[in-house]
Amino acid sequence: MFRKILVANRGEIALRVVRTCREMGIRTVVVHSTADRDSAAVRLADEAVQIGPGAPRKSYLYPAMIIEAALRTGAEAIHPGYGFLSEDPDFAEICDKNGIVFIGPHPDVMARLGDKATARELMAAAGLPVVPGSAEAVSTPAELVETTKRVGLPVIIKASAGGGGRGMAVVREWDELLPAFRTTRATARGVFGDDRVYLERYWEHARHVEVQVLADNHGTVLHLGERDCSVQRRHQKLIEESPAPLLPAAVRERLTQAAVRGAAAVGYTGAGTFEFLVEGDEVAFIEVNCRIQVEHPVTEAVTGIDLVREQIRVAAGLPVSVAQEDVRPNGVAIECRVNAEDPRRDFAPCPGLLTEFVPPGGQFVRVDTHAYAGWQVPPYYDSLLAKVIVWAPDRDQAIARMRRALGEFRIAGPGVATTSELLQDVLADPVFHAGRHDTSLLRS
Amino acid sequence: MFRKILVANRGEIALRVVRTCREMGIRTVVVHSTADRDSAAVRLADEAVQIGPGAPRKSYLYPAMIIEAALRTGAEAIHPGYGFLSEDPDFAEICDKNGIVFIGPHPDVMARLGDKATARELMAAAGLPVVPGSAEAVSTPAELVETTKRVGLPVIIKASAGGGGRGMAVVREWDELLPAFRTTRATARGVFGDDRVYLERYWEHARHVEVQVLADNHGTVLHLGERDCSVQRRHQKLIEESPAPLLPAAVRERLTQAAVRGAAAVGYTGAGTFEFLVEGDEVAFIEVNCRIQVEHPVTEAVTGIDLVREQIRVAAGLPVSVAQEDVRPNGVAIECRVNAEDPRRDFAPCPGLLTEFVPPGGQFVRVDTHAYAGWQVPPYYDSLLAKVIVWAPDRDQAIARMRRALGEFRIAGPGVATTSELLQDVLADPVFHAGRHDTSLLRS
Repeated sequence: MFRKILVANRGEIALRVVRTCREMGIRTVVVHSTADRDSAAVRLADEAVQIGPGAPRKSYLYPAMIIEAALRTGAEAIHPGYGFLSEDPDFAEICDKNGIVFIGPHPDVMARLGDKATARELMAAAGLPVVPGSAEAVSTPAELVETTKRVGLPVIIKASAGGGGRGMAVVREWDELLPAFRTTRATARGVFGDDRVYLERYWEHARHVEVQVLADNHGTVLHLGERDCSVQRRHQKLIEESPAPLLPAAVRERLTQAAVRGAAAVGYTGAGTFEFLVEGDEVAFIEVNCRIQVEHPVTEAVTGIDLVREQIRVAAGLPVSVAQEDVRPNGVAIECRVNAEDPRRDFAPCPGLLTEFVPPGGQFVRVDTHAYAGWQVPPYYDSLLAKVIVWAPDRDQAIARMRRALGEFRIAGPGVATTSELLQDVLADPVFHAGRHDTSLLRS
Repeated sequence: MFRKILVANRGEIALRVVRTCREMGIRTVVVHSTADRDSAAVRLADEAVQIGPGAPRKSYLYPAMIIEAALRTGAEAIHPGYGFLSEDPDFAEICDKNGIVFIGPHPDVMARLGDKATARELMAAAGLPVVPGSAEAVSTPAELVETTKRVGLPVIIKASAGGGGRGMAVVREWDELLPAFRTTRATARGVFGDDRVYLERYWEHARHVEVQVLADNHGTVLHLGERDCSVQRRHQKLIEESPAPLLPAAVRERLTQAAVRGAAAVGYTGAGTFEFLVEGDEVAFIEVNCRIQVEHPVTEAVTGIDLVREQIRVAAGLPVSVAQEDVRPNGVAIECRVNAEDPRRDFAPCPGLLTEFVPPGGQFVRVDTHAYAGWQVPPYYDSLLAKVIVWAPDRDQAIARMRRALGEFRIAGPGVATTSELLQDVLADPVFHAGRHDTSLLRS
């Protein structure tokens, strides 16, 4: 097993990784920007290395600085968290060339799955159902129009290199098509440094259901059940849960088996997520996320399995610690993302000093947060302040528990607002309560 | 179901009860002393009623004030938490006379089990093994000497009305017997207002193992497995876990069946705990705690059952929500009690202002605490600051997780010290690790 791991991330996920490392007896190095100097992960890590200023491109997205920190501190492996360099095959290869283990799938696998159009082709070839769309990236207006004619409106244009809900546009009318094409390409170029986009038929009333897989270098490929992430605002997940409510057993079986088949087909290793759309009995693969996900705790809560521990084990060459028949999801878990965003200013991020920060606690409540009273939320990064995860024997109790937990969360600071009220509105929504919601729930 | 419950307690357990009430849609009234004006339970409750000054006798132990608050606010039931009036049959009767449901067993049952010597007789009659000792309270030096001769040294003298580890003395030599008798009687009179004491053979290397029972008014009596609470300092539990490590299956079966038989024999209802000593294959009943216990969260963590919810259901006349065959304890849970006590001053309580208070979080960690940064720990009450509970698939991982959790707990304030280091020393102790410890582990 590794003796020292470098965490190339920030926020709650850096803390999350440090926690598991400590439990495994592995020393940790956290790299950080000047803006994150006082973050909880930096405080908790055995070592901290400042790698640059607040701007991500000069710190968390700067491979040379990170590799240098790893070599200097003697870290044998790098955990990339989510976002930043977590799905960058080039970074994984640089790690490899420097004799450092990248905790994630093989760079080739990441490269093929990271290009969303290629991933769709691969999975179609492996027998997975896919949404009708362009076979590969669409680069000219003529291709765009032709493909749209073939699949039919509405369509969704997505960045090939995308992720995290950015660089997407839904097109319902013909006259929106070219403007959306130009906008998504520009966004894709700006955010991902790659302007390729592809398109898919848009399912207006789909649920977003994803399957957590876990695979090792010893031939094991298994799944840990599914998560429903249909409560989204502008393609950003807000609430996730496991199991997916009202999902027929036969559909669950098709999804989990498709994910395992897909992972095996590409030689996937580590923890990964296969995302699907589900509308009635129809299911369609959309993409693979080659990393730990923000919403992984709901799977941990129903299975009892520490997913980061499994990632580290697999990266160290050990087998996954459980067998498929021993994975017996129990009860219901829900996660809410509490973001520092101001609902009165169209959910604009609102960084600032936290003068009060008392997270909820008590029975069956987990909070993953890097924030604390007295911490200054920096302006450079995503607005996630805390994840609140609850478990209960059934969904009604889980919803009641989450409402209780969010209700007791005390966050205050000059200029700091949160999404807590929006989350509570959703939790009180009869459609959500009945489990009959889909991704259109918060669509404006 | 009740629409409003009054919580006649303070600290983490008051908050614990409020949390479950909120999840059940029940409104809460928290009564509090002036010293607890700003406690987390008061902040979270729907209503708060100040009932007196800091001194317990003038507030939390003052039945008239509490009943008055319940009548005035229209509370239909009172949850007494633990300590204070929770095992006072007179208080339960006063509630009853005022048309208020006392959330606990029937006053008669409490009276019989509350007298520890009587409880021992009752359980012996029900066929439970008991430690050799006095049949009833010992009131003269002659009775004391005679009984001690019969059971043999060492003996332990205990207050008949006792609980929570107070008013106890171990006697190993004959010349310690009479002084210990006088001391325990004086303590018993002072703390419990009742100077009766009884004695038992003292088991030097026993484990303290207790069984959680749950019973309703519909004939159900079941158990939720056991907890090992052998890590004690001066008869005060510090660390509790479930299941009990290295406990042979046959012994576990005897304990749980004895507890169920004992509960049925006295017509017990609600949540209760049957405490036993275990030494090798020998087991002996010691007492019943007629209330929710400090360490109940470890049972919640391995069973998934909210014990306070079950208490409230039973008090409202509903059946227990699970059947014995559906109780399937899973994994290992450990609880550590973090007290505001100064190890350098013989663990004297050290109240004061908390300038920093950042509890641990993350995967499989639960924290029950009423404290927060900026709160003033009052000097009038027990020194419990927080309970940290972890769950893991096995005991090694649970210990590693607890060490991680305690390691990240940040508590600071002028003059405030905690037992965290002592707890960490125990968690690192090879005897504890092997699960071979008993109540002698921290005996000085």
